Amino acid sequence: MDKILRIDVGAEGGPKVTVTELGAYAGMGGRAMTSMVVGSEVPPDCHPLGPENKLVIAPGLMSGSAASTSGRISVGCKSPLTGGIKESNAGGQAGQVMARLGYAAIIIEGEPKTDNLYKVFINKDTVEITPAGEFKMTTNYDLAEKMKALHGDKVAMISIGPAGEMKLCAASIAVTDREFRPSRHAGRGGVGAVMGAKGIKVIILDDAGCGMRKPRDPERFKAANKSFVEGLRKHAVTGEGLPAYGTNVLTNVINEAGAYPTYNFQKGQYADAAKISGEAQAELEQKRGGNPTHGCHVGCAIRCSGIFVDKDGNYITKQPEYETVWAHGGNCGICDLDAIAKLDFMDDNIGLDTIEMGVTIGVAMEAGLLKFGDAEGAERLIEEVGKGTPLGRILGNGAAFTAKAFGIERAPVVKNQAMPAYDPRAIKGIGVTYATTPMGADHTAGYAIATNILKVGGDVDPLSNEGQIELSRNLQIATAALDATGYCLFIAFAILDQQETFNAMVDTINGMYNLNMTGDDVVALGKKILSMEREFNRKAGFTKEDDRLPRFMKREPVGPHNVTFDITDEALDTVFNW
Amino acid sequence: MDKILRIDVGAEGGPKVTVTELGAYAGMGGRAMTSMVVGSEVPPDCHPLGPENKLVIAPGLMSGSAASTSGRISVGCKSPLTGGIKESNAGGQAGQVMARLGYAAIIIEGEPKTDNLYKVFINKDTVEITPAGEFKMTTNYDLAEKMKALHGDKVAMISIGPAGEMKLCAASIAVTDREFRPSRHAGRGGVGAVMGAKGIKVIILDDAGCGMRKPRDPERFKAANKSFVEGLRKHAVTGEGLPAYGTNVLTNVINEAGAYPTYNFQKGQYADAAKISGEAQAELEQKRGGNPTHGCHVGCAIRCSGIFVDKDGNYITKQPEYETVWAHGGNCGICDLDAIAKLDFMDDNIGLDTIEMGVTIGVAMEAGLLKFGDAEGAERLIEEVGKGTPLGRILGNGAAFTAKAFGIERAPVVKNQAMPAYDPRAIKGIGVTYATTPMGADHTAGYAIATNILKVGGDVDPLSNEGQIELSRNLQIATAALDATGYCLFIAFAILDQQETFNAMVDTINGMYNLNMTGDDVVALGKKILSMEREFNRKAGFTKEDDRLPRFMKREPVGPHNVTFDITDEALDTVFNW
Repeated sequence: MDKILRIDVGAEGGPKVTVTELGAYAGMGGRAMTSMVVGSEVPPDCHPLGPENKLVIAPGLMSGSAASTSGRISVGCKSPLTGGIKESNAGGQAGQVMARLGYAAIIIEGEPKTDNLYKVFINKDTVEITPAGEFKMTTNYDLAEKMKALHGDKVAMISIGPAGEMKLCAASIAVTDREFRPSRHAGRGGVGAVMGAKGIKVIILDDAGCGMRKPRDPERFKAANKSFVEGLRKHAVTGEGLPAYGTNVLTNVINEAGAYPTYNFQKGQYADAAKISGEAQAELEQKRGGNPTHGCHVGCAIRCSGIFVDKDGNYITKQPEYETVWAHGGNCGICDLDAIAKLDFMDDNIGLDTIEMGVTIGVAMEAGLLKFGDAEGAERLIEEVGKGTPLGRILGNGAAFTAKAFGIERAPVVKNQAMPAYDPRAIKGIGVTYATTPMGADHTAGYAIATNILKVGGDVDPLSNEGQIELSRNLQIATAALDATGYCLFIAFAILDQQETFNAMVDTINGMYNLNMTGDDVVALGKKILSMEREFNRKAGFTKEDDRLPRFMKREPVGPHNVTFDITDEALDTVFNW
Repeated sequence: MDKILRIDVGAEGGPKVTVTELGAYAGMGGRAMTSMVVGSEVPPDCHPLGPENKLVIAPGLMSGSAASTSGRISVGCKSPLTGGIKESNAGGQAGQVMARLGYAAIIIEGEPKTDNLYKVFINKDTVEITPAGEFKMTTNYDLAEKMKALHGDKVAMISIGPAGEMKLCAASIAVTDREFRPSRHAGRGGVGAVMGAKGIKVIILDDAGCGMRKPRDPERFKAANKSFVEGLRKHAVTGEGLPAYGTNVLTNVINEAGAYPTYNFQKGQYADAAKISGEAQAELEQKRGGNPTHGCHVGCAIRCSGIFVDKDGNYITKQPEYETVWAHGGNCGICDLDAIAKLDFMDDNIGLDTIEMGVTIGVAMEAGLLKFGDAEGAERLIEEVGKGTPLGRILGNGAAFTAKAFGIERAPVVKNQAMPAYDPRAIKGIGVTYATTPMGADHTAGYAIATNILKVGGDVDPLSNEGQIELSRNLQIATAALDATGYCLFIAFAILDQQETFNAMVDTINGMYNLNMTGDDVVALGKKILSMEREFNRKAGFTKEDDRLPRFMKREPVGPHNVTFDITDEALDTVFNW
């Protein structure tokens, strides 16, 4: 991880590669790297699909090492969805493989001179860029089959589907998992559209001949990693809930809390939630010969990813995440796990963010295009997106765009990005995060659910306004730092609750880099990242008015608690006062 | 003009009317009234289609009097297109009639409880609001026929077509002309969508029994008006060019200047411009028995509106304006006046801004939906808008929306509003206005063409950066004040060049209201209006980053002068330093 690969797609005769040293980016990984490159090199007022934007791909600081659960890879750019800075990260194999190849970042820059598509192949000896016109509008799963035929399934693939090629704002970047399935996605903010605008269809990363990244202080690293893994295994969420049921363990919990957004955020509880819960999903998978306990990359100690199969045991998709099950499920009034799995597969295959698409379909249902609960109709809509019909282009540009196209107010978005699976009126801490994170509505940016609902890292009443600003602030800082490490966000449950696990996590970094970081250094890194991101957004024209929930959420109470979002604007404006 | 009519469309059982005194709004007219009401009563962060937005309709201070050329009517709201404050004004009869009925403003507020449409009928004795479901999706011309059958053709009509009902961001509000044709439009900023969101289809204004508004000082008024009319008649633009050829007199002039945006602003000259010039248009109209010299309302001394007929002498549409001829013509590579007239009629009939639609079709052409020059294709696209197909909803939401839907950067917009018919790279003064007016790209907000090209009110080289800031500033101030009076903007040519005509204009106001306003008072009023508007936008989240031209115009030179827009951001930020 001591070099940067730059690909200038605007060069004469096609993309041109240069490899440079880290320079000012030394010590940066994941989100710290992507946000620093975007903040330093991308004019904040540029067009996200124009020549001045850059796509930055960066593994975390710990990726590629023996550190457990450290496989996240970050993708950054100016977002075509939000118009602000974006970091979206994914699991899968690519983070580990890229880190072992020694690249701390791939920076794709410039504007293609033609409509040609390109494939990038990287191994320890070379970087080859070749025309990839034959893969035009190829879906992610088909592309994986074709790449497997060329390169085997030990490599990692980063790719876009038709949505990215069409530069849709809901377009994701897919990353292959352990079985070379393009099932892990940097989903949010339309990062796939930026890759599409750069004319790069696929990146193959082959780490054959590369060893595991070596820690500078092997003993310290090994001891810390052992303690860290023990901590993950003993915590109820990371050691039991997530492995057994995946993230969908949340369905019953959030529904019970009255914060499960139903029918495009019209209600806070869904009568049929139990039918699509993690418990029901795991039972179904087990009965059919699927697998609810599976790691999305080698070396994961949590293994929340899972495999969803049909009644004959054939692979349908990875086990849909809670957010996906909610977005396509309760939010649309669809209580059929098979239908949801199909929609999840379609999103992954076309290369779409499942949250954005589920919320978009909810908006389309509210606008009267189809009825709540119409699973076949939802499938037809995703098909339209894949085909790039005019309706598909509306939907594929997301929930805010769709609401505007059909003239309705009720778009549950912040900074144009669709809200995830927690109603901010009934869990106010997450509302603060949705409103204020530089990323647009994003639960992962400061997952207040942990403390508001799961009582991890403390207990802050979700319905009270007390303590939510501080909670979101602290979580946003910690998350920004964590997103730099490559560690999966889900380790947060264990490290928030168990001081010794937090210490062990920090010590793995110290062992890896021979540092003496403390908790304070982690906080400082988090603040630094957030400050860079907010500065980019400010220069892009964002103001405090962008740090707001949609107005209807201040006006319309949501049942069963019959609450509006009533944290004041003035309070929201203090989140970044530190 | 001593009362305000409020219509609460959210009342139980349907819209409810109250009539109040002017209160704090005394002395306000036109844009001063609409911007003051919106600034005072509409929360800047509200959703433009939600319950908190208001639609304000206000005749100018001089409307309804014997003052010449004073028939403008202003419509204001928070714009669904720009997200900022909007004033869009129109000619036609409604301003005069409404003023004679004594209403200084109609304020439509609240949110309908049902999908019902309503008709508002106002005469000297009553305001009646009745269900208008039978007119659902009726086009403006059809609606005019139906209203004529009910009310005769001496009334004035304000209406929306299907576009407004569909809440599209390019939806206009139509105003009938002297012949009760819905040919004059408050076109810009999607004001029709706000009327649609309020559920008001049509307003009929019947001034039977109302006299002309009487000046407080009849002698002074009469003398001033006489001198004013003489001034209009003797100036070459208002006395000769506009009456003879309409606004389309500009085609050859702007093309000659190399600032005629061609093929979606790819070039600054159009080879076939002469074929669609005002000279060619007037000749064709005269040959066919149309009329190039016609006033859009009674009492206009300029009479630029004209009548366009087919080869058999049948009415097709009002004589298309320069902006329309350009937007659907040169900008789209269409050099057929009949095709352009057809598109103009379709826009008026569906209720669409011709500038926004022409620019949108140019963007669609650049995105590859159809070829430049394809007039039949352009017609098909407008038909799609009228039908509300998904493609129609993309296009009907304007140029920026269409560019986003199809993933292209080159949207010639500011604050999401399409640029009019002057390339700001080759006429830099208008670029300053496009960038900085609170309205989004709008030539009327500070018509620098007058001085940059027509050498009216001075001579500022269009290609130099010198003097453009000051020019735009002064014109924006003067225009804001003028938009409060009800006087047509075209009087500006005469009053900028002839001090005695300016004095006479001010004196008509003094005579009307028994005041002693001077030029300084006019400037003060203009500044007050602009300040209110900018304050609204600031609270709505606008920053200086919104006061910028699209980045591609700083990067791509436009021929024949091969110039980019290179007035610095810092200079733009000084426009409102006064």
